[in-house]
Amino acid sequence: MHTLGEIAKFINAELIGDSELEISSLAAINTAQSTQLSYVVNNKYKDQLLNTKAGAIIVNESLKNSCATNALVVQDVYLAFAKLTHLFKYKVAHVNGVHASVKINNASLALNCHIGKNVIIGNNTTIGANTVIEDNTIIGDNCIISANVSILQGSKIGNQAVIAPGVVIGSEGFGNARDQNKQWHSIAHLGNVVIGDNVNIGANTCIDRGTLEDTQIHSGVRLDNLIHIAHNVIIGKDTAIAACTGIAGSTQIGKRCMIGGMVGIVGHLSICDNVIVNAKGTVDKNITSPGMYTGIMPLMSHKKWQNVAMWLTKLDKIIKYLDIKLKNLKGK
Amino acid sequence: MHTLGEIAKFINAELIGDSELEISSLAAINTAQSTQLSYVVNNKYKDQLLNTKAGAIIVNESLKNSCATNALVVQDVYLAFAKLTHLFKYKVAHVNGVHASVKINNASLALNCHIGKNVIIGNNTTIGANTVIEDNTIIGDNCIISANVSILQGSKIGNQAVIAPGVVIGSEGFGNARDQNKQWHSIAHLGNVVIGDNVNIGANTCIDRGTLEDTQIHSGVRLDNLIHIAHNVIIGKDTAIAACTGIAGSTQIGKRCMIGGMVGIVGHLSICDNVIVNAKGTVDKNITSPGMYTGIMPLMSHKKWQNVAMWLTKLDKIIKYLDIKLKNLKGK
Amino acid sequence: MHTLGEIAKFINAELIGDSELEISSLAAINTAQSTQLSYVVNNKYKDQLLNTKAGAIIVNESLKNSCATNALVVQDVYLAFAKLTHLFKYKVAHVNGVHASVKINNASLALNCHIGKNVIIGNNTTIGANTVIEDNTIIGDNCIISANVSILQGSKIGNQAVIAPGVVIGSEGFGNARDQNKQWHSIAHLGNVVIGDNVNIGANTCIDRGTLEDTQIHSGVRLDNLIHIAHNVIIGKDTAIAACTGIAGSTQIGKRCMIGGMVGIVGHLSICDNVIVNAKGTVDKNITSPGMYTGIMPLMSHKKWQNVAMWLTKLDKIIKYLDIKLKNLKGK
Repeated sequence: MHTLGEIAKFINAELIGDSELEISSLAAINTAQSTQLSYVVNNKYKDQLLNTKAGAIIVNESLKNSCATNALVVQDVYLAFAKLTHLFKYKVAHVNGVHASVKINNASLALNCHIGKNVIIGNNTTIGANTVIEDNTIIGDNCIISANVSILQGSKIGNQAVIAPGVVIGSEGFGNARDQNKQWHSIAHLGNVVIGDNVNIGANTCIDRGTLEDTQIHSGVRLDNLIHIAHNVIIGKDTAIAACTGIAGSTQIGKRCMIGGMVGIVGHLSICDNVIVNAKGTVDKNITSPGMYTGIMPLMSHKKWQNVAMWLTKLDKIIKYLDIKLKNLKGK
Repeated sequence: MHTLGEIAKFINAELIGDSELEISSLAAINTAQSTQLSYVVNNKYKDQLLNTKAGAIIVNESLKNSCATNALVVQDVYLAFAKLTHLFKYKVAHVNGVHASVKINNASLALNCHIGKNVIIGNNTTIGANTVIEDNTIIGDNCIISANVSILQGSKIGNQAVIAPGVVIGSEGFGNARDQNKQWHSIAHLGNVVIGDNVNIGANTCIDRGTLEDTQIHSGVRLDNLIHIAHNVIIGKDTAIAACTGIAGSTQIGKRCMIGGMVGIVGHLSICDNVIVNAKGTVDKNITSPGMYTGIMPLMSHKKWQNVAMWLTKLDKIIKYLDIKLKNLKGK
Repeated sequence: MHTLGEIAKFINAELIGDSELEISSLAAINTAQSTQLSYVVNNKYKDQLLNTKAGAIIVNESLKNSCATNALVVQDVYLAFAKLTHLFKYKVAHVNGVHASVKINNASLALNCHIGKNVIIGNNTTIGANTVIEDNTIIGDNCIISANVSILQGSKIGNQAVIAPGVVIGSEGFGNARDQNKQWHSIAHLGNVVIGDNVNIGANTCIDRGTLEDTQIHSGVRLDNLIHIAHNVIIGKDTAIAACTGIAGSTQIGKRCMIGGMVGIVGHLSICDNVIVNAKGTVDKNITSPGMYTGIMPLMSHKKWQNVAMWLTKLDKIIKYLDIKLKNLKGK
């Protein structure tokens, strides 16, 4: 808990409102409650600003009069938010052996794994050698967690999880605010990773924690090796994702999807249920219809490719030269 | 060993044949012997079914009369097989320090690596800190195995291997059967990873074990960092593969190939000897001639790309409009 | 230190010059000094050979008379160089707990991390569980180094570094010389990894050490998860790189660039300051102008893609058939 006064000082903000208000945590503008602090980066969110239930909002000069609650006025809202996240970050102490507070039930631990404070581990779960589990993590029953795994602070894992060596769960998301000198300031990620039941996670796959809310892997999901799941991603029930795929921040994938290997999915997208994306495709817009999607350049002999690629980069000029109006061709 | 009767009960199958027959292991239909159990998912394999030497076969109703040996009849053969793999999976106990049965010769181990039962380690081999080596693994002479490596149950590694930190060898393959509710059931992988002599494996690279047979990395192979090698892959002698490449299941790569970085190779393919695939290409069919292959979209200014990509997605319509019969153009 | 005589024997070279000269290390032809040994693979470097300050040079028969200094004459220069690197490689002993020579200042170490000889760790730095740090590494103040990290021999890391679990720093580069039997001989990498201040490195990212000089990550850089940085790469100040990207050997990236996820950048390239490469693009030539670059195949329904891809591979024939001279179209 920090008072608004302390927070204003920490981010060098002008405080309009109650400096004694105790802030418990940070939250998004649309979910923030009376003891929470949020932020608004541009005018697009003006309506939400007028109706927010947040205890206070970080805004810039131009929005300070639209704020229905306590306001912290700064020049660069996102940068101030980035700095503030560090004030609310849980401080993890070193994990040295198994902490006295750990509830192990009848789980089976290798002698040399390291488990932090207030961790709860379910029945018949096994934890492999050199695996590190930080404070406040909850792991369900009948899980098999292999060697050299890192499960960071506050992660929640359901029953029957199978986690391969080298997996990292709960690493910091790749969120940074840039200052006027074009230097990066990391956002401390305050959300967690929440994993449902019956989830398999392949070797060296990484799942980042959420910024303010949680990264979610729903029940029945299958993740292959070397996959990257960024902050705030949500993966729906029974979706399977093949190796080397990367999913950028805040993207949501539906249920029963099959995502091929080395697919790249850009951030802030939505993919509906029952979608198949073939290997190596790039998803750069929402997918709203079930079905199979592909997007790769065909493999050719190098010589052939040189010719094709050369003309490919001139396709717009070719069309212009031929003066084809494709708009007229629709339906033909 | 399990009797056919026990197995029928485990997968809820109708047994036609000898319930007392002892089954030692699972095997593919074309290699299975008299104490082994196999499965056939569709009519394509009917001939093999008539000639198999397997002790028993899992089949569906429509194939049960074509089976030259004991039959286990189920509705969903692949799902039954998936469940059955778990019955034959070797159970790894925790690795805590160096097991008394380990044969170390004059290998040099960091104090804090962990080595399971019946492991054999060759002369002059060094094993780094926090490395975990599970039961029944065999490692040759003069190997350098770095820190934080995970080598799982039953792996075989030849002489002169150099293995970088974070490597995972022998992780479960990404094989799952889907039930009628579209939920995934993992296949327990019963094969191993077998690595020849003089192989280098880069940091955080993952090599999955085979389903029934072994994933094979032949002598002289060079693997860079963050590579994914799926179950049942075979990589031929003296082939070099650059970083971030992924090779999907059951693909075979020939000798002396050079596979560039971030190449994706889809499953069940065959690539002949002396093939070069340039960086970032996607191999989605067999390669039967030596030579250099490429398949990337050229990089352009974003604005230019927007134009080119727009026309690219209409290429089929453009051709139709122009009414070009490319088939007639061959050889011109 | 090895005498030229010893070295000639080790690589089976004809020595023209002073067999007693003590060689301290290997270096590139343009930087080598009087106690250093270099090599020249082809006639392109003949001028440098005439003007070198190196103590000696490995050359082939055709260049031996152009050599202004001591010469080691061999058939295959690069292969001889590859073999020789192993003679000059620092031999790392096992890291077992915290070596007595480590200078920890008031850093905070988990009980079970392992730190080699002559390591220096700065004030307020924390090192997580199961992290391994090899000899001669220097780490600055206020760093947060997580669990299961591997930092290999001779790495230098500035202040305020944040390093996620599973990161590997200082692994061997992917450099190999091929002999006449097409077998690979690894080059022992003698350079280090040097990282500036205020750098973040995401989970399971790998940074290889340089061949003769250092791989460099300049201050303020942000690296996401599962990134591959090859030997001799230089990444400029305040550049941010998203997850799953791979950068091949000896490429230099400027300041304040933003490289998207799963981008592939081929080796020996130069990218200027302030470049944005969108996700999944392939950089296969130098980028000399700031701006935003893209190169992906658009995602389509699979059926649509099959049509488009078929015509795409015939684009050269279509153009030939249409007899379009695009050169004439420039500027239109």
